[in-house]
Amino acid sequence: MLYIGIDLGGTNIKAALVDAQGRVLAEASAPTGGVRPPQALCADIAALAFAVARQANCPWQDVAALGLGCPGTVDDRAGVVVYANNLEWRNFAAAACLRELTGRPVALGNDANVAALAESLYGCARGAHSAVIITLGTGVGGGIVLQGRLWTGFDGSASELGHIVVEPDGVECTCGRRGCLEMYASATGLLRMTRQAMADHPESAMHALAAANGLDGRVPFAAAAAGDAAGRAVVDRYVMYLARGTADVINLLYPEVIGYSGGVAKQGEALLAPLRRAVAPLVYGAADTARHTRLLACTMGYRAGTVGAAALARQLVESET
Amino acid sequence: MLYIGIDLGGTNIKAALVDAQGRVLAEASAPTGGVRPPQALCADIAALAFAVARQANCPWQDVAALGLGCPGTVDDRAGVVVYANNLEWRNFAAAACLRELTGRPVALGNDANVAALAESLYGCARGAHSAVIITLGTGVGGGIVLQGRLWTGFDGSASELGHIVVEPDGVECTCGRRGCLEMYASATGLLRMTRQAMADHPESAMHALAAANGLDGRVPFAAAAAGDAAGRAVVDRYVMYLARGTADVINLLYPEVIGYSGGVAKQGEALLAPLRRAVAPLVYGAADTARHTRLLACTMGYRAGTVGAAALARQLVESET
Repeated sequence: MLYIGIDLGGTNIKAALVDAQGRVLAEASAPTGGVRPPQALCADIAALAFAVARQANCPWQDVAALGLGCPGTVDDRAGVVVYANNLEWRNFAAAACLRELTGRPVALGNDANVAALAESLYGCARGAHSAVIITLGTGVGGGIVLQGRLWTGFDGSASELGHIVVEPDGVECTCGRRGCLEMYASATGLLRMTRQAMADHPESAMHALAAANGLDGRVPFAAAAAGDAAGRAVVDRYVMYLARGTADVINLLYPEVIGYSGGVAKQGEALLAPLRRAVAPLVYGAADTARHTRLLACTMGYRAGTVGAAALARQLVESET
Repeated sequence: MLYIGIDLGGTNIKAALVDAQGRVLAEASAPTGGVRPPQALCADIAALAFAVARQANCPWQDVAALGLGCPGTVDDRAGVVVYANNLEWRNFAAAACLRELTGRPVALGNDANVAALAESLYGCARGAHSAVIITLGTGVGGGIVLQGRLWTGFDGSASELGHIVVEPDGVECTCGRRGCLEMYASATGLLRMTRQAMADHPESAMHALAAANGLDGRVPFAAAAAGDAAGRAVVDRYVMYLARGTADVINLLYPEVIGYSGGVAKQGEALLAPLRRAVAPLVYGAADTARHTRLLACTMGYRAGTVGAAALARQLVESET
């Protein structure tokens, strides 16, 4: 059995033909093409799905189901995109529309959630009992995978990992609350803290690094590695906030693995080693416990979205048989 | 099929004979008898189980399995009590010991977790897709029940609901972290805030109420109901902290129901009505969501422990057949 996973982004649509073991047999992409009527966009998604099957010489009848990862709030059980800001979709029955166009069952999931499913099944948490994936990008998102299945809550909108509070009187979040993890552990939050530290420390090596290579989240890490005190302080503060959010997740869910993806996670051990040290004393009852949650870097890269969507499609078919 | 649920506390052992629908057919209790060798305590537990079956004229062969709810850190899959402070048990294979004594399969769970299972299946969250139960007692504990099953994490020690942080630079917790929910939302935390407010406000009605009926967590609620400003401020502060913890749970897990048990929850709507108002603006994407987590008072009372342990026993038998 083969499955097609689709990762619908604001800029590009990516599709992959994937087997039951998560191996990619073919992949393709097309521009999202800006805000359009959802039916028109679904027609392009269907065309891309047909194209990726043809590319692998796979007859359409060998495709058992499609999975679609969408940004925004998704009611996965109903197959409805409740609200996707950058697509301007509201209460759109995406699964039904795509099923109509392709003649195949369609599983729908939030894009960060399906990427988490891929990391759990085939990536950094392969073989683990349970995993939480935290994406450190423009925002902070992710997914919860319990014994191989996504946990999306009562209405599909669980795992808002960016909206655990780590600083109750802190920076106001776009969600209206104050001090959400997203305001501190996102690349955006890291950049804000970096700019502030640069303004406070004209002597910092961060100024020369930013002038040479541009100002982004790599600057404080590079400065810290070179022994710059202000850069080290930014990294330490970033790690402290991420540790707070991570410890809350562990104390609540105690997953076997927490995997980090997104731009900031590319720092690898420069991020993870201090993070593990910061998290350890915050975990409840750690001294009594032999088995600890492992904090790891994600490994699937850009393919997590399509491979995870395909895995969701496979699970839909398997649950129906 | 019938099941015996046992709730092992520091003071008493409670046992109940329970049917597959959660109905109690007989119940009994015995003193825990202080710190003793675990085998001796298990022998008393077995004797109590035999007694409760006899009491209902239930032949032992009609008892399909036993469930045991223990305080402390429990590895439920291994059937081992990792550490129970007030029993002075460490790495005791309680399930195997009790199985040996009774000739029946034994399911082991943390006491707060099994009580949460009972509330989810038969109490305030009956019929719900998912529930998180938060116990507001001497400490703050509880359990997570997802689609009818307890979630205990990778190693059995998940759902440490008291150890989500709601005030990062706040009061030091017994766990070593600062500002844990337990330090603010427990009856102990409420009493600390009440004492502080009484010291700061000699004019408060709380002084007369405490003199008349004793100083406990009911004092600020009674004062607030009578229009006392200092009492109202204590209740508002308590509700704010509980709302922070509740919102973190919703944003992460989005359960259908959050149920509150324990001493402070006896305030009922005097607690829950302001809590719902405080939680609503903290929930991510609430405006886009039609279905909201319901915040309710638990209904099972003292029976939650035994009935939940019996339900765990039933699930053990059902998973094996």
